[in-house]
Amino acid sequence: MTDKNRATPEPGSPRTLPTTPDPTAAKDLQLLLDGRWASARETFREAFSKADLLPDPSQTLEEARESMLGNLEQIRATGLQRGVFSSKNGGSGDLGSTLTGMEMLGYADLSTMVKGGVQWGLWGGAVDALGTERHRKYIEDIIELRLLGCFGMTERGHGSDVQHLETTATYDPETKEFVVHSPSFSAQKVYIGNAARHGRMAAVFAQLHTPDSKESHGVHCLLVPIRDEEGNPMPGVTIGDHGYKGGLRGVDNGTLLFDNVRVPREALLNRFGDVSEDGTYTSPIDSHNRRFFTMLGTLVRGRVSVGAAGGAATRASLTIALRYAMRRRQFEGLPGKEKRLIDHRAHRLRLLPRLARSYALALLQNQVIENLHDQTTAIERGQWDVAKPNDEQLRKQREMESRASAVKVAATAHATETIQECREACGGAGYMTENRLTTFKADSDVFTTFEGDNTVLVQMVGKELITAYARDLSDLSPIDMVKFGVESIGDALRQRTAIPLAVQSLIDRVSDRDETSLFDAGYQVKILQEREHSLLKSLANRLKDAKKMEPADAVDLVDKAQDHLIDLAWARIDAMLIEALVEAEAELPDDSPAHPVLEQIRDLFALSTILKHAGWYQEQNILSGNRTKAARAAVNDLVDSIAPWSEVLVDAFGIPDALVDVPMLNDSGVDPLPSEEEEKEKESA
Amino acid sequence: MTDKNRATPEPGSPRTLPTTPDPTAAKDLQLLLDGRWASARETFREAFSKADLLPDPSQTLEEARESMLGNLEQIRATGLQRGVFSSKNGGSGDLGSTLTGMEMLGYADLSTMVKGGVQWGLWGGAVDALGTERHRKYIEDIIELRLLGCFGMTERGHGSDVQHLETTATYDPETKEFVVHSPSFSAQKVYIGNAARHGRMAAVFAQLHTPDSKESHGVHCLLVPIRDEEGNPMPGVTIGDHGYKGGLRGVDNGTLLFDNVRVPREALLNRFGDVSEDGTYTSPIDSHNRRFFTMLGTLVRGRVSVGAAGGAATRASLTIALRYAMRRRQFEGLPGKEKRLIDHRAHRLRLLPRLARSYALALLQNQVIENLHDQTTAIERGQWDVAKPNDEQLRKQREMESRASAVKVAATAHATETIQECREACGGAGYMTENRLTTFKADSDVFTTFEGDNTVLVQMVGKELITAYARDLSDLSPIDMVKFGVESIGDALRQRTAIPLAVQSLIDRVSDRDETSLFDAGYQVKILQEREHSLLKSLANRLKDAKKMEPADAVDLVDKAQDHLIDLAWARIDAMLIEALVEAEAELPDDSPAHPVLEQIRDLFALSTILKHAGWYQEQNILSGNRTKAARAAVNDLVDSIAPWSEVLVDAFGIPDALVDVPMLNDSGVDPLPSEEEEKEKESA
Repeated sequence: MTDKNRATPEPGSPRTLPTTPDPTAAKDLQLLLDGRWASARETFREAFSKADLLPDPSQTLEEARESMLGNLEQIRATGLQRGVFSSKNGGSGDLGSTLTGMEMLGYADLSTMVKGGVQWGLWGGAVDALGTERHRKYIEDIIELRLLGCFGMTERGHGSDVQHLETTATYDPETKEFVVHSPSFSAQKVYIGNAARHGRMAAVFAQLHTPDSKESHGVHCLLVPIRDEEGNPMPGVTIGDHGYKGGLRGVDNGTLLFDNVRVPREALLNRFGDVSEDGTYTSPIDSHNRRFFTMLGTLVRGRVSVGAAGGAATRASLTIALRYAMRRRQFEGLPGKEKRLIDHRAHRLRLLPRLARSYALALLQNQVIENLHDQTTAIERGQWDVAKPNDEQLRKQREMESRASAVKVAATAHATETIQECREACGGAGYMTENRLTTFKADSDVFTTFEGDNTVLVQMVGKELITAYARDLSDLSPIDMVKFGVESIGDALRQRTAIPLAVQSLIDRVSDRDETSLFDAGYQVKILQEREHSLLKSLANRLKDAKKMEPADAVDLVDKAQDHLIDLAWARIDAMLIEALVEAEAELPDDSPAHPVLEQIRDLFALSTILKHAGWYQEQNILSGNRTKAARAAVNDLVDSIAPWSEVLVDAFGIPDALVDVPMLNDSGVDPLPSEEEEKEKESA
Repeated sequence: MTDKNRATPEPGSPRTLPTTPDPTAAKDLQLLLDGRWASARETFREAFSKADLLPDPSQTLEEARESMLGNLEQIRATGLQRGVFSSKNGGSGDLGSTLTGMEMLGYADLSTMVKGGVQWGLWGGAVDALGTERHRKYIEDIIELRLLGCFGMTERGHGSDVQHLETTATYDPETKEFVVHSPSFSAQKVYIGNAARHGRMAAVFAQLHTPDSKESHGVHCLLVPIRDEEGNPMPGVTIGDHGYKGGLRGVDNGTLLFDNVRVPREALLNRFGDVSEDGTYTSPIDSHNRRFFTMLGTLVRGRVSVGAAGGAATRASLTIALRYAMRRRQFEGLPGKEKRLIDHRAHRLRLLPRLARSYALALLQNQVIENLHDQTTAIERGQWDVAKPNDEQLRKQREMESRASAVKVAATAHATETIQECREACGGAGYMTENRLTTFKADSDVFTTFEGDNTVLVQMVGKELITAYARDLSDLSPIDMVKFGVESIGDALRQRTAIPLAVQSLIDRVSDRDETSLFDAGYQVKILQEREHSLLKSLANRLKDAKKMEPADAVDLVDKAQDHLIDLAWARIDAMLIEALVEAEAELPDDSPAHPVLEQIRDLFALSTILKHAGWYQEQNILSGNRTKAARAAVNDLVDSIAPWSEVLVDAFGIPDALVDVPMLNDSGVDPLPSEEEEKEKESA
């Protein structure tokens, strides 16, 4: 009887890796993953390897919040926060280093990372990036933790839809003050970090009104003192406390409500919009929309940081779960001989494809950080005017922002799924707080929501592809989306980011789609891109008729295409991830012992990703059923081959031992680590 | 240009449901979901609707543990626990009612459910089911909470592999005592509920040795006092505290280590194995293996209970998330008009297919509880001897256990995914503890692990299909699995449980697979069963060659088939779920207004499940690409159609308002509920 569930073997399969891994491969892989800020990483490894940064579950909520100040003090002392600030404000000019450090805080404690991110990245970042000369006086106090503050953007009624927030700032020429006011409870600022306990000022986003304006000049940001020296709320400011959350106990999230609070005219962060003493509004940017998104754009590093820290928490969890899997024994294989967890194929399948995706994400994250760093540096050097970028700069900026959104969505969604899987893969031990996985899970849980809800952001990524020519548009209004959508399908594809040469040449070598091996790197890129292109074409096609429709019908059409738009965005993300892996492979020295294992990590990522859409690929006649079956068999072979290299692959993450050497790894029923002498013998053998 | 991503419409599509739902449908649906213990449900609704059962996040760990005693006292007062115990021991004989009540505790607080489950279900259940006349004296104290105790099975070295646990109980004829001993640290009992604080005795599972036996008589259970009246550990007993966990703060999990602890001969729970004064071992069951699994089998209700409570927590979460989605507004649709979350298709797609699966799971869970109740009643009445069942009874018992495992795996895996999705679907508000979702998530998280790790249990479900004739075998040893595996493929399929007539007749009406509508109930069952059958056939085929192999090769082959075995088990589970839905539809009164909506819930479950395997169905030529595309389009149409009925569908769960009326539902930015007067007007209209 023939077995329809089995595949015909795929030609060009890579050789099974040696069952005794080469530990020197970890070094080369780590160099690749460490990226441009490798030396900063070494510094932070040292600084963050102290166990006293780890969260202490026995603290009460208030104790956890207070102890966070001590943690921030430790970070402050390293100076890592200075990269957020421009050099004229005392910054170091090294944003990449700061973002790398914030990422690595994710290995230790996500509350510390978030509290630091609020203080320096959001609050400090807003003053630095949206303010001018007259706000410089605050910066050094912010850097040095003498002035703790809040980033008051999100409102109760408009969580994700910040362009429609309700708080108002109305200029009163009589007194030369702004009146900051919450006109309703849905205007209350919510989930604001540093608000419940420690913040003394807030950067408050509000609709700006001047006496001569009928409508708002759009959302602007003002500095509003919220607590006096004794810590009491300022007159007119009502502060609430969110209390207990699903995680991040060290972060004091609270609410802010303003009752006609008066601040001086100079409180307006006036880089992109100002009001003169007599109440005249001016801005270097004419378009309402573009002004708003220019302001938001300067704050994109918060988003980058959250994705990066989510990635770090995931790698720490995989390190713990895979080390456990390599040494924990459970169930007999041959009679009398217990297998290690990793010796069970189901266990390999649950962890190793996720490890491969974590590799791809780490590499893409590095690219985004480099990109953001370079743009920030160019702006610092005056080579780029954020308020008046040229077309090429505008394109680059939007592309970077879209990539930042993409990697934030991908890294945080992956974190939620993978940390959960790691917890379950460690059984009961995984549920004990001392083994860290449940805290990583609880703390990172909200990462899919804050700094841009993933469901909203992923649609931004898709929309960016479909409306790339509509430069002033970045919100989600369905009507606008139809109006500004691609004119033709050709437009959509021409918009596609230039693909690095190394990758393009591999794609070009693929001549016959049906005869190229599934293990061919160029073929893998091509297949994943094809999903993106096909979904983009068909979506553009669906939407183009909407231009002629009545608004209600057009809105309905866009809603019905929402899943299509989201699928497109994910296809784009997967294509970016495979490209990052291929580029990294090209960077490895030719003689590196890491080549064969990185190649298989790329195979595993590509084939497991393709298999998620095995139905679609067959529907589209891009892959035959025989090939998807072959891909499934290949994924099985790959996890078998890679399994013995798990330790090497997580070693390459370079996470300080103090942060991942959890009790269950040294438990009964878990093989002891080889002694140092045994290790040396093995290496010399 | 033709659009390859779009489907040709499917014939036989059901009509879109009216956009104004019929609230009376909720009543009929609730009757269906309430099942046989509907009146008990009403009682428990009343008893558990007090908000003081809800977890209080401000408690310290010790406070949470102490307050749990008060919660248990509330449950005790209802008498619900008596159904666990046999009538000769003062039980009520109504196990179904107890299990229903324990399930409904899942709406309120999972710590209370677990603590109660440990005390009455596991500890009490062990004494009741494994003990005899001489242990009766403990039962009333256990029922009335005067004797708190532990269920000491899991060991550090052998979490899931209980047949190989290490603790020994050696009979000493000199003193007529058993010596209970932990020979190593890996023999330590771990994760034991009630151990860290409140337990006074433990039911300890140990390898039983008598002077004349070379080997262990297998795992048996003994009563061992662990604390004296003052709460101090008994001599030779070392008690540890697991402290903080990912959730379930109210449950005091701890460890137990025994240093040659002596207990009288009568401490052995001797229903299935006894030692006489002179040290002679006797048992009514000859086979080692069958004796062990008979003992475990009497404890299957713990597994049922965990699945049920996981299901309840999921339904509570869906109730919260869908009510929020129906009223929370975010983002403009038409200019100036904000849409509700449910008006976004992505939101419908993330919640409604999960709601459909929750319906199927609740119905299947009811069947399992009925089944277990009926078997327990038959045993009580002496119609069935657990120690010496006849072939038919043995088959029924194994089938019930397999179904209990299946529903435990399915319900808890669904809980983990769905509660997470609900949290994310409620954005930042979902992360606030007061809105309950994060606590449901954290508390239910370990449900996939305890009472049988899902990865292990799901393989049991698969293995049961493949080795159904090997009656004495129930562990996972790969060698045994090969040895006892099906002789022929025909055997495997003949083993399949009889399908209810109502379902079978629908399947029989499907004449032409390719021409039957995707919306035909019989067709849906057939398609889901076909996956099960095909995977079973091919797995049997793969394994049959292994009989001739060397052990090492056979073990390797079984490991390589592990993912296939797991896929098979999930296919079986999905087939059981669709059957449960079809049966339920048949039970609805012909004129019920619930018919059209339940039909679409079944369609949504079936088609979204089929789509998870769209790749496989095409590979096997069971469905064409056109049909899987049509299924995808149908799922979209179905969520659009069902969305306005969301409130009706969660109302039918009948969860007391006090438990799900969380603050975010009454928040700014959320439409207020219609007043009672408005409601009345609407109903009379």
